[in-house]
Amino acid sequence: MPLSINASIITIGDELLIGQTIDTNSAFIAQELNKVGVWVRRRVAVGDVWDDIWQALDEEGNRSQIIIITGGLGPTADDITKPLLCKYFGGKMIVDETVLDHVKYLFEKVYRRPGPILERNLKQAEVPDVCTVLHNARGSAPGMWFKKNKTVYISLPGVPHEMKGLITDEVIPGLLKEFKMPAIVHRTAFTVGQGESMIAERLIDFEASLPSGVKLAYLPNYGMVKLRLTAIGDDKEQVENELTPIFEKLQVLVKEWLVTNEDEGLETVIGKILKAIGKTMGTAESCTGGYIAHLVTSIPGSSGYFKGSVVCYANEIKENLLDVGHDTLEKNGAVSQETVTEMVKGAIENLRVDYALATSGIMGPDGGSEEKPVGTVWIGVGNKDKIETLKLNLRFDRQRNIAMTASNALNFLRKFILTSR
Amino acid sequence: MPLSINASIITIGDELLIGQTIDTNSAFIAQELNKVGVWVRRRVAVGDVWDDIWQALDEEGNRSQIIIITGGLGPTADDITKPLLCKYFGGKMIVDETVLDHVKYLFEKVYRRPGPILERNLKQAEVPDVCTVLHNARGSAPGMWFKKNKTVYISLPGVPHEMKGLITDEVIPGLLKEFKMPAIVHRTAFTVGQGESMIAERLIDFEASLPSGVKLAYLPNYGMVKLRLTAIGDDKEQVENELTPIFEKLQVLVKEWLVTNEDEGLETVIGKILKAIGKTMGTAESCTGGYIAHLVTSIPGSSGYFKGSVVCYANEIKENLLDVGHDTLEKNGAVSQETVTEMVKGAIENLRVDYALATSGIMGPDGGSEEKPVGTVWIGVGNKDKIETLKLNLRFDRQRNIAMTASNALNFLRKFILTSR
Repeated sequence: MPLSINASIITIGDELLIGQTIDTNSAFIAQELNKVGVWVRRRVAVGDVWDDIWQALDEEGNRSQIIIITGGLGPTADDITKPLLCKYFGGKMIVDETVLDHVKYLFEKVYRRPGPILERNLKQAEVPDVCTVLHNARGSAPGMWFKKNKTVYISLPGVPHEMKGLITDEVIPGLLKEFKMPAIVHRTAFTVGQGESMIAERLIDFEASLPSGVKLAYLPNYGMVKLRLTAIGDDKEQVENELTPIFEKLQVLVKEWLVTNEDEGLETVIGKILKAIGKTMGTAESCTGGYIAHLVTSIPGSSGYFKGSVVCYANEIKENLLDVGHDTLEKNGAVSQETVTEMVKGAIENLRVDYALATSGIMGPDGGSEEKPVGTVWIGVGNKDKIETLKLNLRFDRQRNIAMTASNALNFLRKFILTSR
Repeated sequence: MPLSINASIITIGDELLIGQTIDTNSAFIAQELNKVGVWVRRRVAVGDVWDDIWQALDEEGNRSQIIIITGGLGPTADDITKPLLCKYFGGKMIVDETVLDHVKYLFEKVYRRPGPILERNLKQAEVPDVCTVLHNARGSAPGMWFKKNKTVYISLPGVPHEMKGLITDEVIPGLLKEFKMPAIVHRTAFTVGQGESMIAERLIDFEASLPSGVKLAYLPNYGMVKLRLTAIGDDKEQVENELTPIFEKLQVLVKEWLVTNEDEGLETVIGKILKAIGKTMGTAESCTGGYIAHLVTSIPGSSGYFKGSVVCYANEIKENLLDVGHDTLEKNGAVSQETVTEMVKGAIENLRVDYALATSGIMGPDGGSEEKPVGTVWIGVGNKDKIETLKLNLRFDRQRNIAMTASNALNFLRKFILTSR
């Protein structure tokens, strides 16, 4: 991607290096930079170690025009980033009165913590005199914008919602003023039900025919594969016009596995379908333990079509709240076609929904038998007229089995709604 | 941490740089390396770009004795890592018969895909002749172990469960043979209910008194703060003996906020308590939408104490399945002390559990009012004798409001169980 402005992301903190924290910040920052035409060339994580941070600033500064630094700005002793940045850019520490007022406001009016404000919290108003302060509306540690030669260095707190606010409100608008950005356009086709290599086989000629400025990437995840086309150029409209027919061709080539041509999850797709047809859904979850309900309700506005769920880990809950027959459970077991069929029926009646899905399976590591090994899952979906079932044989660990069951169940429901309405 | 063996992790793939994938692999690798005394000094992510990968190998090779490389080994055209590694280490590509047999076995016996095996899948059996092949029991792309000067380079597939299996079965045992490792010992005190800076204030003298080989880190997350002590030395037992009294002192200093002195989540702590006293629990979730049930059931063996949940997004489900009074909802609204109290009562009776928790709130971005703004949450916990409630005023985005409500509710339940049994 030689035309674009390059960025590096440096994350600071031992917690990232011992694996205690998963770095979700970098993904958000990369997405937002990408939208305005900045290509993140490298991401580097270093610990709370003076020399390692200094070296990372040197090296990434030689590579990229934009360096985003997160973390290391907290009020505790293991955070050394602010004095280091002050020295690196040759400044001295001063109190920023606006930040000081904001810190006082937060502690007195928002957090309402009893007693005087701690010295260590007041210190968050100290900043190097060589930076432009970026207002952090969501917390006490301000963002800082430095410039050295032609490179911009931006330091942000590591707390995700504070960092996100600063990126959206301050960093992106600032970068758009500072740099003339190229246009990067992505188009994503989201497929379910076919593996990466079989899709690639189908797309051999398509890939070979792509013009040089267009790239295809395969992003597999839990039985789903996202196919992402990326194009870059000077003018956004021109790049979009070039990409549109190529993307249409791609969608036709993978049509039997295509779920959506937007970059969105299955739970969003189902929500859109239900909203469009004015119907409701609910779930009856044994082995997924509420995870599907959580996925569906993580979408804002889901209360418009999602009514609720019965999570029935215990068999008596299957009987009492979903009217699964005692005999059905006795004869077939909880993990069976008969049980999930009755769970769907019970959910439709007791949750009073138009569509329901049900899951029952053995997620592991224990609980398997010769006849029903770990990974055996029954899924049911239906409405008042019809119920369909599906059996899975998964081979993964507990977390992945739960996630795979959820994506298979949601896709099974999506297809059922589309064919039965 | 100057005594330890250093490692760098290099992750390869454009999807990490455009933010489409969150890097969970690095956290797992760092944890496993850490356990055996390897300090991860840097993590670097680069795209599917020849020069960037090559440069990263050069730079990290100069820094660390162990380089773990993940990703870029898939069967599609955007994966260039294997030929690059072959050239970097001066080898030529050969077919490894053992890998070839394994690929055939997977496609014929496990995946059972109809038709002949694709050329691109068979190609996964080609490896540089200068590497030691690491057997990937979970997939078709093998791991590769290279050595250059005194540095070890290990290339692994990016699919999480394949990578994890290789780390555990092959990489760690191999490294323990190759290097004499120092002892690194961590002790973690997990607190809920107090902010990072107030805890740091309490620990000023404690931190100042720490011996030079011992380090304290603050790891805040959703209203919880983990306090992690790390010590390093030659002999594991000696390091543990040195750290034990220091860790005991730390626990006493933070005792009113201390949840556990193990590195584990609230859902694990509650599971242990319930197992110990032989009691059961269930949840009645409105605003958390099943997320608490999901957290609890993500723990293996949770079916021993967790019976189920009613996720009641719609008010009629609160009435029908939890016996919340129609008048209660009319008069006080769904987000009220009265409603969560009745939800707890209904959950105890209808799920037939000893303890229940209930949540009802406004998670945003829409649905708030002047009287009940976004972030207003009521939590209830109880048993058959007593119900207690708690009100939260959160100020975050939807995902974070859900997560904060879940951790507050679980901690509220934990305290209730401990004081009421």
